[in-house]
Amino acid sequence: MSVKKVGIIGLGNVGEAVVRSFKKNSSLIAKRTSVKVQIAKVCDLNKAKAKVAKSLKLPFSSNPYELIDDPQIDIIVELIGGIEPANTLITKAIKSGKSVVTANKALLAQKGKQLFSLAKSKKACIGFEASVCGAIPIIRSISAGLIGCQVKRIDGILNGTTNYILDKMEKDNSDFAQVLSEAQKRGLAEQKSDLDIKGIDALHKLCILSYLCYGVWPSLKKVYAEGISKISLLDILYAKELNYKIKLLAIAKKEKNSIDLRVHPALISSEHPLSGVSLAYNAVFLDTQPAGQLLFYGEGAGGVPTSSSVISDIVNIACEHQRLARKEEKLPLKNIKDVKARYYMRVMAQDHPGVLAKVSEILASFKISIASVNQKEKEQNKVVPVVMITHEVKEGSIRKAVAKIDKLSVIKGPSQIIRIEDL
Amino acid sequence: MSVKKVGIIGLGNVGEAVVRSFKKNSSLIAKRTSVKVQIAKVCDLNKAKAKVAKSLKLPFSSNPYELIDDPQIDIIVELIGGIEPANTLITKAIKSGKSVVTANKALLAQKGKQLFSLAKSKKACIGFEASVCGAIPIIRSISAGLIGCQVKRIDGILNGTTNYILDKMEKDNSDFAQVLSEAQKRGLAEQKSDLDIKGIDALHKLCILSYLCYGVWPSLKKVYAEGISKISLLDILYAKELNYKIKLLAIAKKEKNSIDLRVHPALISSEHPLSGVSLAYNAVFLDTQPAGQLLFYGEGAGGVPTSSSVISDIVNIACEHQRLARKEEKLPLKNIKDVKARYYMRVMAQDHPGVLAKVSEILASFKISIASVNQKEKEQNKVVPVVMITHEVKEGSIRKAVAKIDKLSVIKGPSQIIRIEDL
Repeated sequence: MSVKKVGIIGLGNVGEAVVRSFKKNSSLIAKRTSVKVQIAKVCDLNKAKAKVAKSLKLPFSSNPYELIDDPQIDIIVELIGGIEPANTLITKAIKSGKSVVTANKALLAQKGKQLFSLAKSKKACIGFEASVCGAIPIIRSISAGLIGCQVKRIDGILNGTTNYILDKMEKDNSDFAQVLSEAQKRGLAEQKSDLDIKGIDALHKLCILSYLCYGVWPSLKKVYAEGISKISLLDILYAKELNYKIKLLAIAKKEKNSIDLRVHPALISSEHPLSGVSLAYNAVFLDTQPAGQLLFYGEGAGGVPTSSSVISDIVNIACEHQRLARKEEKLPLKNIKDVKARYYMRVMAQDHPGVLAKVSEILASFKISIASVNQKEKEQNKVVPVVMITHEVKEGSIRKAVAKIDKLSVIKGPSQIIRIEDL
Repeated sequence: MSVKKVGIIGLGNVGEAVVRSFKKNSSLIAKRTSVKVQIAKVCDLNKAKAKVAKSLKLPFSSNPYELIDDPQIDIIVELIGGIEPANTLITKAIKSGKSVVTANKALLAQKGKQLFSLAKSKKACIGFEASVCGAIPIIRSISAGLIGCQVKRIDGILNGTTNYILDKMEKDNSDFAQVLSEAQKRGLAEQKSDLDIKGIDALHKLCILSYLCYGVWPSLKKVYAEGISKISLLDILYAKELNYKIKLLAIAKKEKNSIDLRVHPALISSEHPLSGVSLAYNAVFLDTQPAGQLLFYGEGAGGVPTSSSVISDIVNIACEHQRLARKEEKLPLKNIKDVKARYYMRVMAQDHPGVLAKVSEILASFKISIASVNQKEKEQNKVVPVVMITHEVKEGSIRKAVAKIDKLSVIKGPSQIIRIEDL
């Protein structure tokens, strides 16, 4: 039986869980494979982690090059995160002919193009199952399970923190700031939660899915990403009344001559399977040909669940099951202003005669037609929310219309627009 | 670039879709792989299918051995279904060193043990993604994506026809017989729908999952399978009121020294992701360690969706990605009488004093305690449904209790018991 040796760099949350899960299930893994996989050494830049290594009964080094330069080690697992030194380490490992497993979405979204091209030239593998949706085997499902499929559209709930916040706002009848601060206190959102809240983490994962499904590594700066901080409880409740849920969606859509990639909050029908994804769970909904519609659902973060994906990459590479031959494609990115959608629109209006007429007039001037209007409370001269659902319209038009509407003296505060995705 | 040649036996619904989907997506498949895959010949025992082959521009034979004995052909795809001649053909193909792709769940459930053992000795592959849940890549997800995971429990909606019927009963307020007959008229259920209705089709798929997750090929006759024909609209509506849905579940559970396999209708919480699986969709819910809870959802039948799984097997075998090294395990099957659950119990009782006391007394004599009782209508001397939820109890006890209850003169008709699965 051949033996494959693994070196793990990064003994944080995920790294430690990988070693523990691997030990726990080692006899099971041995039964399922014909190769003996061995964790040879663990490494962390923080020397204090030597203690963790000791408790795991594994040799430790604080110098990653000790693992990368070790000719006995076949597979380097990078779990330190961030761009540097991760990029340098992975590059060096691939150049020395080793395969690499990584959970580093930020790095792949930025440097994936170079890293995969280098790996191809060196005939090395990069395993990246853990970089998207934690425990869900979405990378392998798309690249092997759906190898004969066109992916027409992806709609993903790719960030657990934001899904948790939106879900809690509805369930607890709480505002964004309140839920965020509670989630931070309970360790469910990071103290510096900008990457999550602003949709950047979901964007990173979307870029990886774009490469996987379409062979396109988009320029990060050009992809539209909008976070959830402007979503108010009011919107969530109005959406609910209209039989919708608000979710932070990562969307990838292949069009004839372009690719439509974006991350933003969207109203989706309460009947759609994605609307039932609660708490910090992740899910990916795929519309494919010929496999039809598929949903993959599971835990999107956390050391223990994510360790499953890291281990599956290690074992599959060790058994030489994994070879990603995805060729790069050149496809222009669709501009967000050209994206068409129906819109949920909430304006805060002074409730006196003629307000709706003025708003409608502006909308009409941009050829935006209204499918429904909902104005609940009626108290003369008070500011009340007016909720409208538009017919399909280009984002560029509605943005201009809203800018004009917000200048009306009878309208108070910026109006809210949220795309409706008819999944 | 190496070339792999494929022969397809069976040009029915799935077979034709495989060829068409393969042609449609051939440039995409070429981009994703380093091997050229070619459909060399198609075959059907029915000579009239030569026409279909002609429209597909492919050589045709009505003699499967022309494909199996052709040294040019590397992979045989069996899509004729049924036990014979499928078993003989696959056995012959493997013996002559070819790999096989099949969607034949009935065959694998009965002969899988022999076929996989033969394939192992011949170093051939058997691709069987299409045998469970049509388009959902559940086989590959478990065998590769979750290769480092213990599957603690599987709960599957593995049969589309029965899920469609239960769903329609609720949505249309219709009885079982009515919905079944409509579904048959509309081609959504087969005329001879016994395999579906009685849970046998789900049982076949469960056996395959049992092998995949636990290495156990159970004896088909020993696995408990109960269909949906006894589920009345009344039960569905009562379940709904109690915040449950009734689904036909296929359950596999690893216990310490045995394996618990069964197919039967069950009440599951309306909050659970499986409860949202509507129409003819399939879904598999896995409870794993360390990956946690995962759901896979998609189309479970139909030629076009299923063709995706067949093609993925063909391409993955052609690229030598797939090697299933699952070792067989010996584990006793748990007896259904020893399975514990909470129960939904509906008795039709004459509404006069003392009935509940009599029923409770019998339940108590079997140590069954009642969590809740629901008796809606109250009309003296009429027969009314009394719905009870029990605390956890062994199946053996509740069966005995119900037999005794049904002999009471104040009880009319057989009482209904349905297991509650607290997923």
